[in-house]
Amino acid sequence: MAEPDFPEAEFEERLARAQRAMRANGLDGLFFTTEAEVRYFTGFRTLFWQSPTRPWFLVVPASGKPIAVIPQIGAHLMASTWIDDIRTFSAPHPTDDGVSLLADCLSRYGKIGMPMGRESALRMPLRDFRALTTRLSSSEIVDASDLMVKLRMVKSEREIALLREICGIGSAGFANAATLFHAGQSLKEVFRTFRIELLRQGADDVPYLVGGAGQGGYGDVISPPTDQQLEAGDVLMLDTGATKNGYFCDFDRNFAIGSASDEVCKAHEKLVRAVKAAADIARPGKTCADLFSAMTAVLGQEDGDVGRLGHGLGMQLTEMPSITGFDMTGLKENMVMTLEPSIDLGDGKMMVHEENIVVRDGPPEFLSTPAPEEITVI
Amino acid sequence: MAEPDFPEAEFEERLARAQRAMRANGLDGLFFTTEAEVRYFTGFRTLFWQSPTRPWFLVVPASGKPIAVIPQIGAHLMASTWIDDIRTFSAPHPTDDGVSLLADCLSRYGKIGMPMGRESALRMPLRDFRALTTRLSSSEIVDASDLMVKLRMVKSEREIALLREICGIGSAGFANAATLFHAGQSLKEVFRTFRIELLRQGADDVPYLVGGAGQGGYGDVISPPTDQQLEAGDVLMLDTGATKNGYFCDFDRNFAIGSASDEVCKAHEKLVRAVKAAADIARPGKTCADLFSAMTAVLGQEDGDVGRLGHGLGMQLTEMPSITGFDMTGLKENMVMTLEPSIDLGDGKMMVHEENIVVRDGPPEFLSTPAPEEITVI
Repeated sequence: MAEPDFPEAEFEERLARAQRAMRANGLDGLFFTTEAEVRYFTGFRTLFWQSPTRPWFLVVPASGKPIAVIPQIGAHLMASTWIDDIRTFSAPHPTDDGVSLLADCLSRYGKIGMPMGRESALRMPLRDFRALTTRLSSSEIVDASDLMVKLRMVKSEREIALLREICGIGSAGFANAATLFHAGQSLKEVFRTFRIELLRQGADDVPYLVGGAGQGGYGDVISPPTDQQLEAGDVLMLDTGATKNGYFCDFDRNFAIGSASDEVCKAHEKLVRAVKAAADIARPGKTCADLFSAMTAVLGQEDGDVGRLGHGLGMQLTEMPSITGFDMTGLKENMVMTLEPSIDLGDGKMMVHEENIVVRDGPPEFLSTPAPEEITVI
Repeated sequence: MAEPDFPEAEFEERLARAQRAMRANGLDGLFFTTEAEVRYFTGFRTLFWQSPTRPWFLVVPASGKPIAVIPQIGAHLMASTWIDDIRTFSAPHPTDDGVSLLADCLSRYGKIGMPMGRESALRMPLRDFRALTTRLSSSEIVDASDLMVKLRMVKSEREIALLREICGIGSAGFANAATLFHAGQSLKEVFRTFRIELLRQGADDVPYLVGGAGQGGYGDVISPPTDQQLEAGDVLMLDTGATKNGYFCDFDRNFAIGSASDEVCKAHEKLVRAVKAAADIARPGKTCADLFSAMTAVLGQEDGDVGRLGHGLGMQLTEMPSITGFDMTGLKENMVMTLEPSIDLGDGKMMVHEENIVVRDGPPEFLSTPAPEEITVI
């Protein structure tokens, strides 16, 4: 039997907060199709979402516990969570992949909220969604993105403990860089070695690992590894989203191979100072835009191609809000954020740096072990 | 610069097949929001899809090359593919995450196809999708799921070569089971050890690893590992979807710890014979339903909670079609399939077994090294 990631109290608290917000918004039910939202309210955690075959649904009523409407194959695992009302359908089904079961469940509600805004997706066939909404013609379906963002962006201490653990694992992995990476190694070997290191340090999985290397910087920050070999003078950057109990770290480190040019040293120093400038003002009441301004003031440039300088972190590699000049989201205690300045070095080269923090009533807590201003030479 | 997974000829062939099908269906354009479809036509491969923040769009016209409408952060990587027309937007954007750019691109087309059917999802906010369709009010948007399924389910020899490689890596990992797993080991250790083994054998990543263990069978086949320790008499099952160059293996193996009961031995034998029965008739012209019948005849029972007895395999852990009694999809040469019989042992226990094959003009090719009828005791 699967072991829950949290005690039942965690889910009771999440549900209570959600239902308070539902009442404030006049919502009779919430409807979800995506992994993070289903897991948030149930604790149902499985890699089986990798398979696109079967839709999974969750309904949260304005009072009472959530209702899972799921394929029969998930019934055993869902029964190990705190959820009691589990309605299953045989899937894949020749004609009705849960739509009728879902319509029966949702038709009791007058006003139904679902995420339709920024960063949301619809993880069910559009054809089935249209069939569902036709059957719910006497209900009103509205966007509940803001409600969900507000709920999820403030973490519980239990969530923060998991995030602290996986960030610690990431930091321990990076601390061994000098023994793991060396000139002559291909980027593919670097990535393989670092994945294995993170698993050895206690990560459950490494769903995200990107990076690059080059003389005086790298070209982008989202590419898979190549056969390119590390050379003296290269800057190697690795950015990892490893997981433990379904919670992510998300930070990167830069390493100079053999030696670092003055330009690289200065860029690294500037990036670390930008993080420090944002962390220095990261308090409840400040906004994402304030963090953005604090960083760009140090960097002497805007966000370039990346589009932002950090974001929320939790059950997903990136969560709302975004640290941009236009995001006026107010920081709240127990928000977990990445601070992720990037710097354009010209000639198609860039450097990035990232740390993970918790906003506290006072100075933020660093979850990643902060990097020194001086770039590590290996 | 990223190295393409295939030569340009692969993408030219995919596009030519798609455009023939588009003409046959009277479609002026195809529109995609999901990872596999974008990668299928472009070769754009990145783990950055883990981040839900930014939508990514691809438009395939009835003639000419695909058009990428993507966040600026992906421009450098997309430029390393064969795509020439790359239109970028700053993302996250305060008001317009690519919708205007997309509407300008798509409004030239009268009839636009997009996946709306079985196994599809919409990876963009529903609110933005509605804004887009409003701006495309003079176009007709229709379901192109069948067209895409037919294209993707038949693999090229280049794709099959990648699938053969990752299945070989999975087989090599499982071959070392006796040295990797032992009584007293927790399932968490088993999973960690096997992930590391697969990486060492050459996998790029292990996005999917599930399994279970128990006396005389296990309870489900989608759960994450627990602290439960392997004991003598347990059956351990591991099911892995490891990747290389973005292509998946998907098969499992059962191991008896110390010894196997007669019932377990018989169940394992039956599962392997069911795979053989399906493989024996897997030829062009037979249907998925034929494979299903061949397996249930050996098993002496239907598909139980799992809902099917195998599926397509390729860029995703599971792809269309499904091996069910109702799926009349005709097998075609170069379809890559998993054969995945399961058996209900009563008392909440089950066993599964899985192999990966290519349908050929003659006997199928096994990509996974077929398991013997006798369960391996370790």
